[in-house]
Amino acid sequence: MQALIITIGDELLIGQTIDTNSAWMGQELNKLGIWVIERIAISDDKNHIIDTLEKNKNRADVILITGGLGPTKDDLTKHVLCEYFGGELIINDEILQHVTEIFSRRNLPMLEVNRQQAMMPNNCKALFNKLGTASGMQWQIPFADKVGQQFIISMPGVPFEMKYIMQTHVLPMLQGLSNTQVHHRTLVTAGIGESFLANKIKDWEEALPPQIKLAYLPAIGMVKLRLTTRGNLNETLEVALDKEFEALKILVKDYLFADNDEPLELTIGNLLLQNKATLSVAESCTGGFIASKIVSIAGSSKYFDGGVVSYSYRAKENLLGVNNQTLQTFGAVSEECVTEMCKGVLQKFNSTYGIAVSGIAGTDGGTDDKPVGTVWIAVGTANKIVAKKYLFSKDRFRNIELTYVYALKMLMEEIKK
Amino acid sequence: MQALIITIGDELLIGQTIDTNSAWMGQELNKLGIWVIERIAISDDKNHIIDTLEKNKNRADVILITGGLGPTKDDLTKHVLCEYFGGELIINDEILQHVTEIFSRRNLPMLEVNRQQAMMPNNCKALFNKLGTASGMQWQIPFADKVGQQFIISMPGVPFEMKYIMQTHVLPMLQGLSNTQVHHRTLVTAGIGESFLANKIKDWEEALPPQIKLAYLPAIGMVKLRLTTRGNLNETLEVALDKEFEALKILVKDYLFADNDEPLELTIGNLLLQNKATLSVAESCTGGFIASKIVSIAGSSKYFDGGVVSYSYRAKENLLGVNNQTLQTFGAVSEECVTEMCKGVLQKFNSTYGIAVSGIAGTDGGTDDKPVGTVWIAVGTANKIVAKKYLFSKDRFRNIELTYVYALKMLMEEIKK
Repeated sequence: MQALIITIGDELLIGQTIDTNSAWMGQELNKLGIWVIERIAISDDKNHIIDTLEKNKNRADVILITGGLGPTKDDLTKHVLCEYFGGELIINDEILQHVTEIFSRRNLPMLEVNRQQAMMPNNCKALFNKLGTASGMQWQIPFADKVGQQFIISMPGVPFEMKYIMQTHVLPMLQGLSNTQVHHRTLVTAGIGESFLANKIKDWEEALPPQIKLAYLPAIGMVKLRLTTRGNLNETLEVALDKEFEALKILVKDYLFADNDEPLELTIGNLLLQNKATLSVAESCTGGFIASKIVSIAGSSKYFDGGVVSYSYRAKENLLGVNNQTLQTFGAVSEECVTEMCKGVLQKFNSTYGIAVSGIAGTDGGTDDKPVGTVWIAVGTANKIVAKKYLFSKDRFRNIELTYVYALKMLMEEIKK
Repeated sequence: MQALIITIGDELLIGQTIDTNSAWMGQELNKLGIWVIERIAISDDKNHIIDTLEKNKNRADVILITGGLGPTKDDLTKHVLCEYFGGELIINDEILQHVTEIFSRRNLPMLEVNRQQAMMPNNCKALFNKLGTASGMQWQIPFADKVGQQFIISMPGVPFEMKYIMQTHVLPMLQGLSNTQVHHRTLVTAGIGESFLANKIKDWEEALPPQIKLAYLPAIGMVKLRLTTRGNLNETLEVALDKEFEALKILVKDYLFADNDEPLELTIGNLLLQNKATLSVAESCTGGFIASKIVSIAGSSKYFDGGVVSYSYRAKENLLGVNNQTLQTFGAVSEECVTEMCKGVLQKFNSTYGIAVSGIAGTDGGTDDKPVGTVWIAVGTANKIVAKKYLFSKDRFRNIELTYVYALKMLMEEIKK
């Protein structure tokens, strides 16, 4: 079973919005064994929308469309689809009641444009949107040139509303229809480049059975490796997939961060939980990025005590007890300073583990002996603190993310000792 | 002049990677008056790549392709394009020297796959990549059905390498060719929904001259409004665009955050700089998210002192001096607690302004009188602190982002007083 995603909106083409919807949809469809063959982003333009539908109407079992369902004038999708499928807009009473309730609950007057959100094409199935005023729409039409039916589904572009409609209506419907499956095993490595990883696993990769495919997914500071098989997962194939995955884990063990596709902060969180340990962080160059990543996991309060963002000398002294003499002699970006920062945060929060980072993220602030990209990371416990120096890149965002990845890698190594 | 973007990689289709490249490319092309007509994401598959090129070869003046240029087996783009354009791969000495240098500088052995990165099709222009081993490629071919030439450009998918090749080679080349222009004026509003904004500016919007187009770009807690004209910007059109933009600013003044398209943290940073003021933050439910946003701006050390992530009662007491009695009586999510947190952070950092937030982000932790989404925000100076209660959503990420937006909005109002 195959899907195609069409996202509508000039903001996607001029780059004012980053498309996170498609990635989420791709992940969810994948779990059902539905392969996204293509993603197309087009403009809020009637002809472009119709043209794209015409070109793609027989290419996939399901076409998922997002965007252009809002109440404003530049939202054309509902009108264009209604016309394209030869329907007519009529009031849907259930949706009207829902929209009315939203406005009365918020104590807001309902405008004519809001009322029009309850107008639906009379030849589609309305996909009720509990979280907003724009409902989804679903058409089911026979393929022109093959047996079966094609589903064309339109949803709002607001991520949490799209997700609601997918989870409530679309995914359960598709789950009933899908018959092939896609299976992945993914692991996360940190601290090794793509080509070195490739070289390390070369012989194993060349000997992979043809029905198992390997993909390298590099991100900042990490490479994910994904094994994939398609088709019905019989016992033999599952055994083969697991066997190859176990072999791969051993080959990359020095760089292995997680043996499933999860964010680093979740892996670390689970590890802290298992060890009944807690963490606090002292951040200079990352400015709260590490803490906010840790906190992005629901339930992180069980193992995360908190942190200090000590951007100035003063903050390092007052909040973390870094010695003024240390700062004067060695500077803030030094082994001595991060070690004292780590000691300080461990004491302040009384946590099992502490992380401290101090560096020159850029774009300015670099010197000859401490160029932009120089970062000191300390990790440890009340008994022992380890500090390492890194030289990352010239790019501020990259340096912040790399500091985060390497700090978590150092922490994992400490916990596993 | 029109462009089309093709991104290659299974990881984009199964949603393992979020495509940020296309957004950046769209923005940069837009500045040159080049309109991105469509973005297509396809799989690492030879037939799919060739099929997509065939279908789109006469649709735009420039086709920008990213991805699939790495050293590993799943990277097919160079080979497929070379074959498609009837070329042959030969060693490029300059690139070979560069790749060799990269490995010797890092004290790493160079592998055969790395050496192959210096093989280039003999019928394209190589776009030298200072930051990595995968060079870009540029073909220039006559249109099949119209006058002129089409450029087909292939770049690596790693964002900072793609950006380097765009900035060094592609954008300067395109700048010389582009003759039409696209002009935008964008403003950012916070704290008002899209349809209310639309109602507020209805009469003005209906009276807009036809050559000026309005777009609503909603994001979490904010709506951006963008005015666009295309074509050569003569004086009359520029005057009209500016006039409409000024009129719009007045209509939305109560919700206006910035009168250009910049992130909130940059607007706030500039405002603090102008007022020679500094900021510190005390974060509970946002866990460092506000601090990390502020610090994402290069040079933020000039106005940002730092922050405390006080995730536990203990941290609120020890680091911010919140009274234990306050926590016992009113709880951590209360006016009293955020006010004391704000006082504490102002004292600790001796900053001009302080922000403190405490809430229940979710997914767990809600109670009947303090459901998930309840957030208290305090903003103020040593003399005066204002606190407000909000009830956001059930979604953890949304609550963290909304807290950030509303905290910055409250801060802006305080600074402007």
